[in-house]
Amino acid sequence: MVAEAVAPPARADAVVARLMELFAIDHAAGTNRPGLGAGEQRAHEIVAGWMREAGLEVEVDRAGNLIGRLRGAVPSLPEVWSGSHLDTPPDGGAFDGALGVLAALEAAAAIRASGGARRTIAVVAFRLEEGPRFGRGVFGSRAYVGQLEPDEGELRDPDGTTLAEAFAELGLGTLPDRGWADPPPACFVEAHIEQGPSLAAQGATLGVVTSIAGMAGIEVVFHGRRGHAGTVPMHLRADAVAAAARFVTALHAAARDIADAVATVGSVDVEPGASNTIPGRARLFADVRAPDGAGLAALVEAVAAAARAAAADTGCTVEVLPRWRYEPEPMHELPAAALRRAVGAIGLDPVPIASGAGHDAAILAAAGIPTGMLFVRSDAGGVSHAPEESTGTDAVAACLAALEGALRELAA
Amino acid sequence: MVAEAVAPPARADAVVARLMELFAIDHAAGTNRPGLGAGEQRAHEIVAGWMREAGLEVEVDRAGNLIGRLRGAVPSLPEVWSGSHLDTPPDGGAFDGALGVLAALEAAAAIRASGGARRTIAVVAFRLEEGPRFGRGVFGSRAYVGQLEPDEGELRDPDGTTLAEAFAELGLGTLPDRGWADPPPACFVEAHIEQGPSLAAQGATLGVVTSIAGMAGIEVVFHGRRGHAGTVPMHLRADAVAAAARFVTALHAAARDIADAVATVGSVDVEPGASNTIPGRARLFADVRAPDGAGLAALVEAVAAAARAAAADTGCTVEVLPRWRYEPEPMHELPAAALRRAVGAIGLDPVPIASGAGHDAAILAAAGIPTGMLFVRSDAGGVSHAPEESTGTDAVAACLAALEGALRELAA
Repeated sequence: MVAEAVAPPARADAVVARLMELFAIDHAAGTNRPGLGAGEQRAHEIVAGWMREAGLEVEVDRAGNLIGRLRGAVPSLPEVWSGSHLDTPPDGGAFDGALGVLAALEAAAAIRASGGARRTIAVVAFRLEEGPRFGRGVFGSRAYVGQLEPDEGELRDPDGTTLAEAFAELGLGTLPDRGWADPPPACFVEAHIEQGPSLAAQGATLGVVTSIAGMAGIEVVFHGRRGHAGTVPMHLRADAVAAAARFVTALHAAARDIADAVATVGSVDVEPGASNTIPGRARLFADVRAPDGAGLAALVEAVAAAARAAAADTGCTVEVLPRWRYEPEPMHELPAAALRRAVGAIGLDPVPIASGAGHDAAILAAAGIPTGMLFVRSDAGGVSHAPEESTGTDAVAACLAALEGALRELAA
Repeated sequence: MVAEAVAPPARADAVVARLMELFAIDHAAGTNRPGLGAGEQRAHEIVAGWMREAGLEVEVDRAGNLIGRLRGAVPSLPEVWSGSHLDTPPDGGAFDGALGVLAALEAAAAIRASGGARRTIAVVAFRLEEGPRFGRGVFGSRAYVGQLEPDEGELRDPDGTTLAEAFAELGLGTLPDRGWADPPPACFVEAHIEQGPSLAAQGATLGVVTSIAGMAGIEVVFHGRRGHAGTVPMHLRADAVAAAARFVTALHAAARDIADAVATVGSVDVEPGASNTIPGRARLFADVRAPDGAGLAALVEAVAAAARAAAADTGCTVEVLPRWRYEPEPMHELPAAALRRAVGAIGLDPVPIASGAGHDAAILAAAGIPTGMLFVRSDAGGVSHAPEESTGTDAVAACLAALEGALRELAA
C-alpha cells in the first residue's frame, strides 16, 4: 500500500511544515486567525489548494465550511467525515484545530493513492470554532446541523463588527436559516491535540475520547458609579471592579467544590479604564465546564449566585447574560471502536480520555451523528491556546497513521 | 469698576459656553483630551486665542504650558500665577481643569478692563495633568519646577507612543532637562471643582483648600500560566485574574482600615483576554491616597503586601512597580487668606476643605511656591471624571467673583 511506502516520519514532517505555514499567518506573539476573519480565510484558501493538489473535490458550504471530498466507489452511501477547524484564539498555537484538518487530508490523500474507498470521505474545516471573537464558537458545525441561534448574526466582536457583517464580508451572503446535514454523514471523526497534560503524564501518545464536557459561557456585567479616585470615600463607592473581584474569587471557589469542574474568567473589560477614575462598569466572561450535567447545572447557578452576591456587597447592580451552553456529549461506539482498533494496529495503547475542551465533534454528536475523537498527546505541560502549544513529531506521525486506519475501516 | 458693570450671571454664562466649546472637542461619551494629544492641543490653541482677545501676552513655555500675561505696572515684581489644566481623563467632564483656566482668564480680563494691577498676572494652562494616558500626570507643572523623572520620556501610552514622541509631535522639541521657575512666582492660585460631594452636602458654594492629599500610583503585574479553559484542573492553574481579584479585594479592605484613605484599581488589562484561555497576565494600576504621610506610607505598603499574598495564594508571580508618589501638601496661608477674604466679600462662607484629588497646585506647593486653591461646588452628587460632571452657573459665577477678588489683592 502506498500509505506504507511513504515513511510515517517523513509524512509527519510534511504535516508539521504545513502547520508552520499556517502558524505564520497573521502571527504576533502567537497565531491570530479569528473565525470569519482574514487569517482564517487565508488558511481556508491555502488548505483548499492542498485539497486540490491531493485530488479532492473542493466545496465551500453555506456556512463557509471548507470540504474536500474523495469520492467513494459507492457515492450513494452516507459519507465518512473527518476534520476540525482552522481558526485560532488570540495568540494561539500551531496545533489546535489545524492538526485535525491536515491529518484528515493526509489520510484521504493516502487512501486515494492506495485506490480509494467504498464510501466518500469528506475532509472538513468548520468555521469559527473558537469562542473569543464573538463570545460564541462552533459556528460552522452548528450552522451545518441547524443550530444557529436567532441572535447569531447580531453578535459583535470587540471592534463592533457583527457576525453577520463579518460573514457577508467574506462573500458568503446572509446567514443560513436552517441546517443541511440531510442526509447526515455516516459518522464524524475529529483528531485533535489533547490540550492538557493527561496523555503525557501517562506516557501515552494517543487517546480515544469517551465524552466531551458540558460547558456554558456567561457574560457578567457589573454596573457601579463612576467617580474621581481621590474624592469619593470608600463607603460611598459603587466600584464595578470591586464587584468583579469578589465575583471571580467566589466563582473559582465554587468550581473547586464541584468534582472535575473548572471555571475561567479570561476576559475582563473595565470602563472607563482610567487609573484615576472609579470604574463605572466591568464586563467579564465566565467559561464554566463540568463532565456531567448535574455539575454543569450547579456551575451555571454558581455564576448567577456569585454575581448577585458580589453586586450586593459592593452597591453595584449586575446583569447575568447566558451566551451559550452545551450539555456533556458521550462519543459514539462505532467510530470509537474503529479508532481503538487503529491505534492498537500501530502498536499503541488507545487510552480512554474525557475531553474538557469543547469541539465541533460535540455539536455533531448532539445532532445524532455517530461521532468519535482521537486525542493526540500535548507536550510542553499540555499548554494550549498559547504560542508554546507543542506536540512532538512522533505523536503527529502516530496520529496520521491511526486516523488513516480508522477512516479506512469506517469508509470500507 | 468694569468687573461690576458686567453682571456676574452673564459672565458665568459666557464661561460655561466656553467650557461647552472645549467639551465638544473629541467628544465621545464624554470629553477626551489626553495630555500631549490632539484634543489638548486644540484646547490650548482655542484658549490662546481667547487670551489674545483679552489683551494678554501669550507664551508657550518649554513644556508646552500655555501662559497669558497681563503685564503689571511694576513688571520687576514676582508674578501672580493662576490657572489649571485643559487635558481630561477618558470620557471626562466639562469642568475639571478647564474651569480653573477660564476663571483665571476672566479675572485677568476684568482686572485689565479696570486699569490693571501692580504685579503681572499670569494665566496658565499646565500640560498633561491627568495620569491615565502615560500612568503619570502633572507633567507641565513638574517640568516647570524641574521635577521630571529620568524615565519621563520613555513612558508609553496604551497605543505604544512614548511621552517623548508625543511631545516632539507637537513641535515642542526634546523634553526640558531642568526647571525654569526662576525667579518663582509670588504665588499660585488654582480654582477647581471639588470633584466630590462635600461642599454640596454642607450647602456651601466655595471652599478654600487646606491641604492636598498624599497619593501614589503603583502598577501591579501578575504573571500566571496560560492554558486552555477546559483542560487544566483548578488545582494545577496559575490564573493571573484569580490573583488580580484577590489583590483588589485585599487592597480595598486595607484602605477602609486607614482613616480617610482611598484605593482605586481603575485599570485592568488581561492577556490574552480570550474567554476560553486561562489568563497568563493581568496588569493593574492602583491609585492610593491618604490625607497624611503615615496613611500614605501604610497604603503603599498595603499594595505590596496584598500583591505578594495574592500571587502566593494563586501560584502566580508579581511585579510591584511604583510609578509616582506625592506627599501630602499643606496650602500656604498667603493665598489662602486672600481667598477667604475674597469669598467673604461676596457674602459666602469660605469653607475649609481638604483635597482628595491631586492638582498642579500640589507640585508648585512642594517646590516652595506659596500656593492656594479655591474649590467650587460639584453638583450631581460630586461625580467627576465622567460626562455627568456638573457645577451650577451660580457656583461658576461665585468662583469668578472670588478668584478675581483674590487675584486683585495678591497682585496689588
